[in-house]
Amino acid sequence: MDNRPSFVMVGIREDVVFGADVRLVQPVNLYGCMIGDGCFIGPFVEVQAQVVIGNRCKVQSHSFICELVRIGDDCFIGHGVMFVNDLFANGGPANGNRALWKGAVIGNHVSIGSNATILPVHICDHVVVGAGAVVTKDIVEAGVYVGNPARRKEGISDF
Amino acid sequence: MDNRPSFVMVGIREDVVFGADVRLVQPVNLYGCMIGDGCFIGPFVEVQAQVVIGNRCKVQSHSFICELVRIGDDCFIGHGVMFVNDLFANGGPANGNRALWKGAVIGNHVSIGSNATILPVHICDHVVVGAGAVVTKDIVEAGVYVGNPARRKEGISDF
Amino acid sequence: MDNRPSFVMVGIREDVVFGADVRLVQPVNLYGCMIGDGCFIGPFVEVQAQVVIGNRCKVQSHSFICELVRIGDDCFIGHGVMFVNDLFANGGPANGNRALWKGAVIGNHVSIGSNATILPVHICDHVVVGAGAVVTKDIVEAGVYVGNPARRKEGISDF
Repeated sequence: MDNRPSFVMVGIREDVVFGADVRLVQPVNLYGCMIGDGCFIGPFVEVQAQVVIGNRCKVQSHSFICELVRIGDDCFIGHGVMFVNDLFANGGPANGNRALWKGAVIGNHVSIGSNATILPVHICDHVVVGAGAVVTKDIVEAGVYVGNPARRKEGISDF
Repeated sequence: MDNRPSFVMVGIREDVVFGADVRLVQPVNLYGCMIGDGCFIGPFVEVQAQVVIGNRCKVQSHSFICELVRIGDDCFIGHGVMFVNDLFANGGPANGNRALWKGAVIGNHVSIGSNATILPVHICDHVVVGAGAVVTKDIVEAGVYVGNPARRKEGISDF
Repeated sequence: MDNRPSFVMVGIREDVVFGADVRLVQPVNLYGCMIGDGCFIGPFVEVQAQVVIGNRCKVQSHSFICELVRIGDDCFIGHGVMFVNDLFANGGPANGNRALWKGAVIGNHVSIGSNATILPVHICDHVVVGAGAVVTKDIVEAGVYVGNPARRKEGISDF
């Protein structure tokens, strides 16, 4: 076959709205999103359209923030964190039918550990999500949540 | 030390066989593989030699598809999905001894959630693998599979 | 807003110390670390300052090795493996207060499966960590460890 693929390069599309004093490490793939004052975005990160990230957040390397996600202020998104907006509700991907997508809503002062996976849930303020956790349900109480599926961790943290 | 490393750049090697109408986002690292008609490949993806991907599949950002994997038609591979072909059967990596490698075989209409990990198993048609799941055994019945290790999810899906 | 972010590009900073015969695939982001003889570093990898990697190790694509981690000889770090040095001990990120960081110490002949997450633990020689595992406690006995949190796997390995 002599087919050649069509391609675009990652980059920062002109429609990204940056607050003041944002620092980032290229290559990143950012488009249609808003990123607040004083944020840091690490390398190999993709942030999709209609994402809103508050002020003073860090998004570390290798993370993916999907369309519709909203993140508050002073949040830390670790390395390799993946957000999900498509629950495959009909047994497969929504294939661009945005009516089937839901975006996670993350409060303020939320810290998400590396390699965590965040389904389209609400997470309240002052929550820590442990590294490698899979958050499948809303978190409505401040605390530390670990495991797959993520559950509240009682007692002294050693995650 | 004055040692300098030797290096190559990621890219699309000349031996990749593309179907018609493939779209991709660079940078990607593709070599020795076949990618079917109408596929989409996201950024920061690596697809190794001897991989065969069917028609109308999407492979999202940050995923890694290792040598010997075969994927059917109309599949969705989420973000940060890692395939594994080396079970460290002798207590460590096979170190290029391909006799010790096994490749996953994925059916048609299979959707794999973000951050999932797929050991060298067979997955039948019409399966959904939840985000963050680790699939360690063959899946021979259509349905939704979640957790680490992945198990069939009964009842209404809320993964 | 007309704010423009400040940015740097990934790359290999001049202060990286390489042993002999290191091979790598760009793009990588390496700075302030030591990488031993005969190592291989895959694409989309970041290795931070003060990391020491021994001889004959492989670090596969998409992995992140954070500040303070030490890795012995003949280790295999799979794809998408994330190391963690900040336990959010005060309910959030240490924000550069290195007194709160702890680095993992990995022995010799340790193989870590893809998508695994490694908290700041000690792992002894001749350990296999299964793909997708989350290692939250020290491993002091050779063997195979799987799951979230990782536990010793008894009997014949089929991870």
